[in-house]
Amino acid sequence: MEDIVSLCKRRGFIFPGSDVYGGMAGTWDYGPLGVTLKRKIKQAWWDYFVENRDDIYGIDAAIIMNPRTWVASGHAATFSDPLVECKECHQRFRADKIADVSEKVTPDEFRAAHVKCPNCGKENWDDVKQFNMMFTTHVGSVEDDSSKAYLRPETAQGIFTNYKNVVDTIYPDLPFGLAQQGKAFRNEISPRDFVFRSREFEQMEIEYFVDPTTWEENFEKLHKACYDFLENKMGLPSSMIHDLEVAPEDRAHYSKRTIDVEFDYPIGREELMGIAYRTDFDLGNIQRESGKNMEYRDKNTGETFVPHVIEPSFGVERLVMAVLTSAYTEDDVNGEKRIVLKLPENLAPYRFCVSPLLKNKPELVAKAKEVYKKLREKYTNVTWDDSGNIGKRYRKQDEIGTPKCIVIDFDTLEDNTVTVRDRDTTGQVRVDINML
Amino acid sequence: MEDIVSLCKRRGFIFPGSDVYGGMAGTWDYGPLGVTLKRKIKQAWWDYFVENRDDIYGIDAAIIMNPRTWVASGHAATFSDPLVECKECHQRFRADKIADVSEKVTPDEFRAAHVKCPNCGKENWDDVKQFNMMFTTHVGSVEDDSSKAYLRPETAQGIFTNYKNVVDTIYPDLPFGLAQQGKAFRNEISPRDFVFRSREFEQMEIEYFVDPTTWEENFEKLHKACYDFLENKMGLPSSMIHDLEVAPEDRAHYSKRTIDVEFDYPIGREELMGIAYRTDFDLGNIQRESGKNMEYRDKNTGETFVPHVIEPSFGVERLVMAVLTSAYTEDDVNGEKRIVLKLPENLAPYRFCVSPLLKNKPELVAKAKEVYKKLREKYTNVTWDDSGNIGKRYRKQDEIGTPKCIVIDFDTLEDNTVTVRDRDTTGQVRVDINML
Repeated sequence: MEDIVSLCKRRGFIFPGSDVYGGMAGTWDYGPLGVTLKRKIKQAWWDYFVENRDDIYGIDAAIIMNPRTWVASGHAATFSDPLVECKECHQRFRADKIADVSEKVTPDEFRAAHVKCPNCGKENWDDVKQFNMMFTTHVGSVEDDSSKAYLRPETAQGIFTNYKNVVDTIYPDLPFGLAQQGKAFRNEISPRDFVFRSREFEQMEIEYFVDPTTWEENFEKLHKACYDFLENKMGLPSSMIHDLEVAPEDRAHYSKRTIDVEFDYPIGREELMGIAYRTDFDLGNIQRESGKNMEYRDKNTGETFVPHVIEPSFGVERLVMAVLTSAYTEDDVNGEKRIVLKLPENLAPYRFCVSPLLKNKPELVAKAKEVYKKLREKYTNVTWDDSGNIGKRYRKQDEIGTPKCIVIDFDTLEDNTVTVRDRDTTGQVRVDINML
Repeated sequence: MEDIVSLCKRRGFIFPGSDVYGGMAGTWDYGPLGVTLKRKIKQAWWDYFVENRDDIYGIDAAIIMNPRTWVASGHAATFSDPLVECKECHQRFRADKIADVSEKVTPDEFRAAHVKCPNCGKENWDDVKQFNMMFTTHVGSVEDDSSKAYLRPETAQGIFTNYKNVVDTIYPDLPFGLAQQGKAFRNEISPRDFVFRSREFEQMEIEYFVDPTTWEENFEKLHKACYDFLENKMGLPSSMIHDLEVAPEDRAHYSKRTIDVEFDYPIGREELMGIAYRTDFDLGNIQRESGKNMEYRDKNTGETFVPHVIEPSFGVERLVMAVLTSAYTEDDVNGEKRIVLKLPENLAPYRFCVSPLLKNKPELVAKAKEVYKKLREKYTNVTWDDSGNIGKRYRKQDEIGTPKCIVIDFDTLEDNTVTVRDRDTTGQVRVDINML
């Protein structure tokens, strides 16, 4: 993990948030290469689930929503972690992370666990409290309870609250899905594990509305689609992806089936995404809280009912981390240790790097610029590198995952061929410029 | 304006935020067609300014930044609007919007203006106060001044704070730019004018770092690029775009030149984007506040200096609104009033709509599905419509800006040709399916 974090910082993928001011715990900033990688991942997801399907439409709701949203969804009452403070050193911890207790632990249960403070070693705890993880703010010029609002802790509710708007404007046939990509915020007591658990993150969620009698087949289809996406669009090896069928007692009370899709991260096997059958829980809540009818009227039968929902939910950062994990490789090249990011071609920030063999030979530089320009006309993801020597450039391009390095040398001036060097094998071939 | 707002809601472009709960003032949610339009606008900008240039790189910083950011930038002290409350009816207003006074109006100056309350008509005002427009929140489990943080009121500072990270990792040659797209938040006292002035919005900003001796030529070049983008990528008519050269006394104190690029919106001529020469104001502030060196070392001369900055700044929603404004047209077709969105082809949510002439003729539907499938293999932005009659479908596709409607009729079954109907002229031609 440390190697990946270090590579990300060194090469301009991901920096600690507000780094110049000593950071801001639980936030991360994406540098030039990280932005490109993240955008490609997000666009691939959007293409796969929205653009290339006829039954899923996009939505983009505001982050600051009417607070009744979170009353209806249950977040205002129960979206909390157990917080405990050491009376000796005043450090605060998530109770269920330092003792073998549940998220809903009572003060007495926590005391009975007899854990010592991980900071000072004493055992003198204040009562465990439930700490709501939603960030609060105030909207408008009066700062009181009436103006209190939250930063959304999930994108899902921005979809559910727009379900009726969509049904009333574009009249989709059932089953249909609404997809959203966007930021969500959780005031984690202890953000950790790089971008895996941060306070500000991006989600990509689909709420797929179905006739309740058909939920099982739709669940299967979406589950299969998620795997197809992870394996074939993200290039994640199937050996590193695992279904965790969540047991009834561990599922949210409204869910009749939940699968956590886990990935073998450097920090262990952890949740990469989830797919849950949420019944009519969310639309039912909105119907109750808003007093508005959430029923769908079947165009053929005229039958009306509140649709049930299957929810595939992805975290962008968890996908970024999975892609980086599966790509990160250390090997030996001619007896030297090499770090290489074996990113799939469709996700690599740059597909080609063009270089003159030597920087101080104007005729090589001119020819290389010509090749660079020509490739840039066809592709946007081409980079130019004339820094250091060729060995250093290869190491740099390996580290940022560029599949092919194209080098212009003296032979190029004679026979119009260039060296194309492969990132993964380090093998080199001569190719005519017109065949690139 | 009301016509555009109404069209946006009716056709699933833009809904009031949290509509199902009676709204959330100053927020807007994008429906299926609005998301597509907005994504196309954002991607076109990214392609134009980042992907297709060699000198501008992407950045994606967190929304919640270390609060010292806003001390250094001056926002904590001065990013405020003058707020005044009527002592009679307790309504609050932006003082400079109800009286002919400046943003920095004093209580005495406001009283001297003798305005009556727009709500109750009385003249009994509390003292004008400066109201900071940054949304505040608290990060971590302690809610006090030490944990106070802000939602960024602009994306620019997320770029400046990462300047050093970028210089230290990818060593760009000067001049170079860093570009960011992302949300920003301003607690406007009175959000208004549809998406033009909302509390949550998206910015697209570039900070372009230059040798101070070259600022004028770089300013010109970027200014020209912005116009090229607005006219040729967004399809905005040049007659609706106007430069406002901001007078020295109206510029921010650090700026040596600012141009507000204004657009003829239905609400009047208002700012669409801006381009400002910010000198070394921002990097200087960060250097002072962080104690870190922001100097750039010229690779050729070895000279060191703090780069100066040219900033082109776009609001996504203002661009969306400009595109909709210039596209919105009412005309007469055969004596009937028609509403048509004459969106440029590259921005229209759908490029083609495929329809069977009659819905209840299986042979027409089958053939139309075949054509639809074929086009979908080549394009993602194709829609299917078999609702209502053909006239209604045309009106709907006109309203959502679909350039071409392809209709399969009985002749199609005979000669394999279809009707292609043009949105703008309503003219129709017969085209062989293989030529589509």
